[in-house]
Amino acid sequence: MIIPASNIGELNDLHQQNHTIQYANLKNDLELKGIDPEALVKQLIDYQVAIPSWALGAGGTRFARFSIGGEPSTLEEKIKDVGLLHQLTQSAGSISLHIPWDIPEDPLATKELASSYFLAFDAVNSNTFQDQSGQRHSYKFGSLCHQNPTVREQAINHNIEVIEIGKKLGSQALTVWLADGSSFPGQHNFRKALDRTAKSLQSIYQYIPEDWAMLIEYKPYEPYFYSMVIPDWGTSLLLANQLGDQAYTLVDLGHHLPNTNIEQIVATLHSQGKLGGFHFNDSKYSDDDLSVGSIKPYQLFLIFNELVFGIDHNPQNNPDIAWMIDASHNLKDPLEDLMQSLDQIMIAYAKALLVNQSTLAEAQALNDITFCQFILNEAYQTDVRPLVRESRLRNGGALYPVEVYRKLGVRDQLIKERGKESKASGL
Amino acid sequence: MIIPASNIGELNDLHQQNHTIQYANLKNDLELKGIDPEALVKQLIDYQVAIPSWALGAGGTRFARFSIGGEPSTLEEKIKDVGLLHQLTQSAGSISLHIPWDIPEDPLATKELASSYFLAFDAVNSNTFQDQSGQRHSYKFGSLCHQNPTVREQAINHNIEVIEIGKKLGSQALTVWLADGSSFPGQHNFRKALDRTAKSLQSIYQYIPEDWAMLIEYKPYEPYFYSMVIPDWGTSLLLANQLGDQAYTLVDLGHHLPNTNIEQIVATLHSQGKLGGFHFNDSKYSDDDLSVGSIKPYQLFLIFNELVFGIDHNPQNNPDIAWMIDASHNLKDPLEDLMQSLDQIMIAYAKALLVNQSTLAEAQALNDITFCQFILNEAYQTDVRPLVRESRLRNGGALYPVEVYRKLGVRDQLIKERGKESKASGL
Amino acid sequence: MIIPASNIGELNDLHQQNHTIQYANLKNDLELKGIDPEALVKQLIDYQVAIPSWALGAGGTRFARFSIGGEPSTLEEKIKDVGLLHQLTQSAGSISLHIPWDIPEDPLATKELASSYFLAFDAVNSNTFQDQSGQRHSYKFGSLCHQNPTVREQAINHNIEVIEIGKKLGSQALTVWLADGSSFPGQHNFRKALDRTAKSLQSIYQYIPEDWAMLIEYKPYEPYFYSMVIPDWGTSLLLANQLGDQAYTLVDLGHHLPNTNIEQIVATLHSQGKLGGFHFNDSKYSDDDLSVGSIKPYQLFLIFNELVFGIDHNPQNNPDIAWMIDASHNLKDPLEDLMQSLDQIMIAYAKALLVNQSTLAEAQALNDITFCQFILNEAYQTDVRPLVRESRLRNGGALYPVEVYRKLGVRDQLIKERGKESKASGL
Amino acid sequence: MIIPASNIGELNDLHQQNHTIQYANLKNDLELKGIDPEALVKQLIDYQVAIPSWALGAGGTRFARFSIGGEPSTLEEKIKDVGLLHQLTQSAGSISLHIPWDIPEDPLATKELASSYFLAFDAVNSNTFQDQSGQRHSYKFGSLCHQNPTVREQAINHNIEVIEIGKKLGSQALTVWLADGSSFPGQHNFRKALDRTAKSLQSIYQYIPEDWAMLIEYKPYEPYFYSMVIPDWGTSLLLANQLGDQAYTLVDLGHHLPNTNIEQIVATLHSQGKLGGFHFNDSKYSDDDLSVGSIKPYQLFLIFNELVFGIDHNPQNNPDIAWMIDASHNLKDPLEDLMQSLDQIMIAYAKALLVNQSTLAEAQALNDITFCQFILNEAYQTDVRPLVRESRLRNGGALYPVEVYRKLGVRDQLIKERGKESKASGL
Repeated sequence: MIIPASNIGELNDLHQQNHTIQYANLKNDLELKGIDPEALVKQLIDYQVAIPSWALGAGGTRFARFSIGGEPSTLEEKIKDVGLLHQLTQSAGSISLHIPWDIPEDPLATKELASSYFLAFDAVNSNTFQDQSGQRHSYKFGSLCHQNPTVREQAINHNIEVIEIGKKLGSQALTVWLADGSSFPGQHNFRKALDRTAKSLQSIYQYIPEDWAMLIEYKPYEPYFYSMVIPDWGTSLLLANQLGDQAYTLVDLGHHLPNTNIEQIVATLHSQGKLGGFHFNDSKYSDDDLSVGSIKPYQLFLIFNELVFGIDHNPQNNPDIAWMIDASHNLKDPLEDLMQSLDQIMIAYAKALLVNQSTLAEAQALNDITFCQFILNEAYQTDVRPLVRESRLRNGGALYPVEVYRKLGVRDQLIKERGKESKASGL
Repeated sequence: MIIPASNIGELNDLHQQNHTIQYANLKNDLELKGIDPEALVKQLIDYQVAIPSWALGAGGTRFARFSIGGEPSTLEEKIKDVGLLHQLTQSAGSISLHIPWDIPEDPLATKELASSYFLAFDAVNSNTFQDQSGQRHSYKFGSLCHQNPTVREQAINHNIEVIEIGKKLGSQALTVWLADGSSFPGQHNFRKALDRTAKSLQSIYQYIPEDWAMLIEYKPYEPYFYSMVIPDWGTSLLLANQLGDQAYTLVDLGHHLPNTNIEQIVATLHSQGKLGGFHFNDSKYSDDDLSVGSIKPYQLFLIFNELVFGIDHNPQNNPDIAWMIDASHNLKDPLEDLMQSLDQIMIAYAKALLVNQSTLAEAQALNDITFCQFILNEAYQTDVRPLVRESRLRNGGALYPVEVYRKLGVRDQLIKERGKESKASGL
Repeated sequence: MIIPASNIGELNDLHQQNHTIQYANLKNDLELKGIDPEALVKQLIDYQVAIPSWALGAGGTRFARFSIGGEPSTLEEKIKDVGLLHQLTQSAGSISLHIPWDIPEDPLATKELASSYFLAFDAVNSNTFQDQSGQRHSYKFGSLCHQNPTVREQAINHNIEVIEIGKKLGSQALTVWLADGSSFPGQHNFRKALDRTAKSLQSIYQYIPEDWAMLIEYKPYEPYFYSMVIPDWGTSLLLANQLGDQAYTLVDLGHHLPNTNIEQIVATLHSQGKLGGFHFNDSKYSDDDLSVGSIKPYQLFLIFNELVFGIDHNPQNNPDIAWMIDASHNLKDPLEDLMQSLDQIMIAYAKALLVNQSTLAEAQALNDITFCQFILNEAYQTDVRPLVRESRLRNGGALYPVEVYRKLGVRDQLIKERGKESKASGL
Repeated sequence: MIIPASNIGELNDLHQQNHTIQYANLKNDLELKGIDPEALVKQLIDYQVAIPSWALGAGGTRFARFSIGGEPSTLEEKIKDVGLLHQLTQSAGSISLHIPWDIPEDPLATKELASSYFLAFDAVNSNTFQDQSGQRHSYKFGSLCHQNPTVREQAINHNIEVIEIGKKLGSQALTVWLADGSSFPGQHNFRKALDRTAKSLQSIYQYIPEDWAMLIEYKPYEPYFYSMVIPDWGTSLLLANQLGDQAYTLVDLGHHLPNTNIEQIVATLHSQGKLGGFHFNDSKYSDDDLSVGSIKPYQLFLIFNELVFGIDHNPQNNPDIAWMIDASHNLKDPLEDLMQSLDQIMIAYAKALLVNQSTLAEAQALNDITFCQFILNEAYQTDVRPLVRESRLRNGGALYPVEVYRKLGVRDQLIKERGKESKASGL
């Protein structure tokens, strides 16, 4: 769905005067500190985050799933939803497909449709954690790590097929979230399971095109509850190193044990040239998959601080990182939720860009911790929302995307079109 | 399903000779320490654990559910499965219904069927965390805590209906697991949500018959991921105290934050006369709902140690506790899993019964920690399996229940009867 | 030490122009939203936090302690340090004594000295977790919970003595952090230990003056590593309820298990009229005792949001809360650290005051989670530092306290006066 | 101190009859299962664990330290204590020095003294987390990672000196526990700190003799509370791989985030040929340093299960592992505590040796989880204490070491010799 530009313009106009003042005030403040606001706005405009095709419908827990209404039930409808998101936020410029939930029947047409919404195709995702109807072998006891070579082969072939689809759409990365693991001591021989997994990944890796990356996700638990074959960044990096130069680790914010210092992991992986992808979400307890920045916004800022520094200091040639939101929308309207998540990502990124890296390096060299903390706080306390809004405005987006979405009654319209019980494929 | 006693007997005979020796050896050892093995066997025979009606089929995660085959699809079939379990283990003498998953159409007939398997009806469980088809108001945003009085009323009425069903079956307790909560800061006003919940519980409490208990479960997170209305034992106790003498706290082993000292909570609640129920399972990370004793068997022993002491020292008149297994069988055959869980419960209980409480009290009085630890270790390291087997044998159960189950091909038979795709109601 | 007002004034002047603009801009923004900035400044001015007498020197870990230099080695010097802190920040208007680390020899003189720095005496703290030289009985195995009545009596008498000292200084509360616990399963009989503790507390409670409060702190572990006698808010509340109307729970931010929702505990305690005290610090893993707001500033904001709401809606007559910073200064200059902590407290408080409570209540009533989150974010993203600075300025404090402290070379001066190796009493 | 063999013999005699029966019964049971008890006893006899020189005195927390009495205050006395331990348990055949707490003045004499107690010298440990009196540069802000090259050099030289001492004593490994880290966001540039550390380690590695190993420990937090330079096994392995073939990772059981699956880490490191050392202790919350097996004995068994399998299946030529107990004796008599720890290690090891690996492999191949769990449980529930006692007895040790220690009044004797206030060097 495309909203007439005039509609957005009219709603922006309501806030234009305030925005102009707020932006001018912030501009002044920043310039006094020697920061160029225009450069920041440009960096924000350039920053784009992928939306996964499975995120446009209601998520669920193992206990219940509550429909949203107007959920997209075809890939085309999902592309339209992301198109709308991108139009309003100007920061969701790509879509990440999950196979087999969203197999394009006519890839060329799909690609064109996406293009018409200014959307590219980001990493493609394979799924070997569920049994699809008609599937020959079950993944109940694993896929790439399975004891049985026939099951492994099926899972390998699925990944190759996903690569083929991605090639037709212009994707340049395969993300493997290997949900294999064990729920009881003794179920797995850890060594053998890891070894079989390494061999399976090698078989897939051979099919990775030259200009692609293979991203290996890690997760400590769930859907298995005693061990996961790739539980942590260390195991993912081990595998990526064994595979070769095009294999990288992917960090999902929700995939860590309690109290993990994620920003340090980000820094370490980047320093090894092996940080390939990033899944944004937030959590308080577990892999809660909540809206980005809704629980630990300061941690998000600290992570961005590492990323900003890393991208500027990249002797190990870490590649461009694939950014994606990976949340579950159990309660909130997915489109509103994604708009809030994109906003929080931009806020964290903008604040990280404000960190005075050279002064920080000096304070660090002197072990002046008070001052180090002061510098981070200076950036973090700054209200950067005028910058974020300005970056949306410059490209035709909305100053207040959720407000536009609500005032135009988008969800109601989607319900009218698609019905109250339409169900998006996904969990 | 009833297995001919002769079948069990024949399979027991294969192990009888070894068992006799092992039991005799253990008997000797215990008598040397002044412990009466016969008294222990009697206590083990008397100890009975309820099986919930939703535990006979495959569980699932939010990612996938894999069928077991031969799952019971009616309440009658579930009762038969528990009957079999009880026949083999002689320790699963009751069943706990979950409404509306298992509404008996003819309660009298249901009760008689259960009786024919020597099963009683334990606590009945209400469900206000899922929407049932045709349900007027959704529980998406809560039930007993809901903003809207009409939704609360619906949830209250459901609980009253559950009590009515329980009365007809001879249950004597209502278990309320209130899955209400919030997933985002700001979503709930904690105070008001707790207050509304207290009032709703009061409305239900009025319908609790005089010889019943009302059991209030707590859980820190899931299915909501920021706050739960009853997150911990403190809140549950607060509510139970407000409600009255028939309200108690129920402890589920999986419902705690990382590193919680659960045995201390058990002791504290019991010392207040407010420990009403107990849900057994095990977990490594979260509410993993794994087989009892599969991850932290020593913790289970320590908990039983508190229970054994508490039951013997009960100045606050804590009532008899409602024991139940509450696990999820995602990978293992539910009946095998339950047999292993029951075995682990009996092992932990038997070991706790071996703790020399008077010597322990003396060592504690002297702050002789080395000796305190020695005393617990003496009990814990003892191989009590001969006691547990003997207790099963005395009542006609199996020395090795899983072996009997497998040798008689029970699952295959169930699949033949019920089909490969039958699905038990539940999660 | 007192800094000449003119010195502060001159250093403020350097920033006055910028501050005036920033404050004016923020004022405008807030007034557009219907918020009265002057009322906020007044609330910030009124908000005062106690500084504990043990926080002016270097803290340490069990592995090492590194001196700061110029640490105050007498109570008088500590009062001077807090006086300086208060002069610069205008928000540290009281001091909280820890006995026996800081026994005033001449209470009247001590009180007058404090008054001369505009300092009152907040809660007094007892210490029964260390053995003092010449102490008759050791607290190695506990104090108020000890097996031996003579040890308990010694600990009770110590607490009574602390009350006596507090009375002379004008304190109105006794804080009991009971560090008793056990490090091994079996060491304690939980029930008996809790029971002995309750009785000991009762003995102390009798000596609490009519206009005093008794504050009971809780902590899940450390210095004992298996159980603490008062591990959680539930146990603390249990004891406070048993003791009577003047007994309350004290929340220390660092005393919780991983992932605990502290803001909910704060709300629950307040709703019961039983939230008596608050210890500020921050932590990532354990009881890390880091600078307030340095790790989880959003959590701090959410906690203040509950406090602000609770103070405005207080049907249970929760008393005024005793606020105190309780951190350990292992690496940073304690005075700088405390200034940063006070700043973060004020920032979190100011942001919480910005939350539009009536709009939030409306959004909650509609389960409009997106909007609830938007409302909190509106407050949290606002750069409130101009308000905080203005509140300091109005009373003669420093716009940038740390800068003044550094420019005037206070630490160097303290080292000159007190030496490099002076050591403050404390941990 | 050496106990006359006759004393031990007499006290063993009191239990000999029972032991003979218990051992015979267990022997029978095991032989029925096709297990050779004599082979097990031999493996237990061969298994030796190092005792660190700092573990013979009282440990402490940051809050307090309570003396034990009779603590060894010289290296000679410490060797004597370990000698006693070894005599009684026959499983503590080596000692691990911590420099500079225990610098041997005359290494040859020290070596001979140790030999006279049948003790070898295990890994030597460097200490760069404390400032020693007279030390030129402080380690307050780090050592091998320090900003200042002079500090790094001092720390490097210290490590080289430790190697030199170790060479004289016959040690064959250097253990580096790098306690460097940061307590506040911004304090460290993670990348630079890791980089400097890698270079410092490289400088030390050059001095590692050809037949030595360099063991790199990891820890997520404490004594720093925001980040540690080597927080996890992934970082340790990264560094070990960079350093070369003689560098390995050392696993300390207490150095993990909540819920970590340590046995999987052990398996992964071993499969990479990089598991070099092992520090035994136990914990419930943090790095609690409690007696081995006192909290999570089943986890210990699972870890040994991986070790037993790994040692038997070692295609990557993982070297012999350096085993050491690393606990803190805050409450219990250190010698009693170590005896209990050694006992638990032997119990866990013996149980792991009972696991039928080939049957387990078959069950794993069939995904027969119920049977996998049954196999582990068969081993774990077996009371292996007769095997452990027999292994002590064969070599002249005590059936019940703590009992001998107590009946002979060893601690009283040590207090008589060394005084009540003697203090062992260490934390």
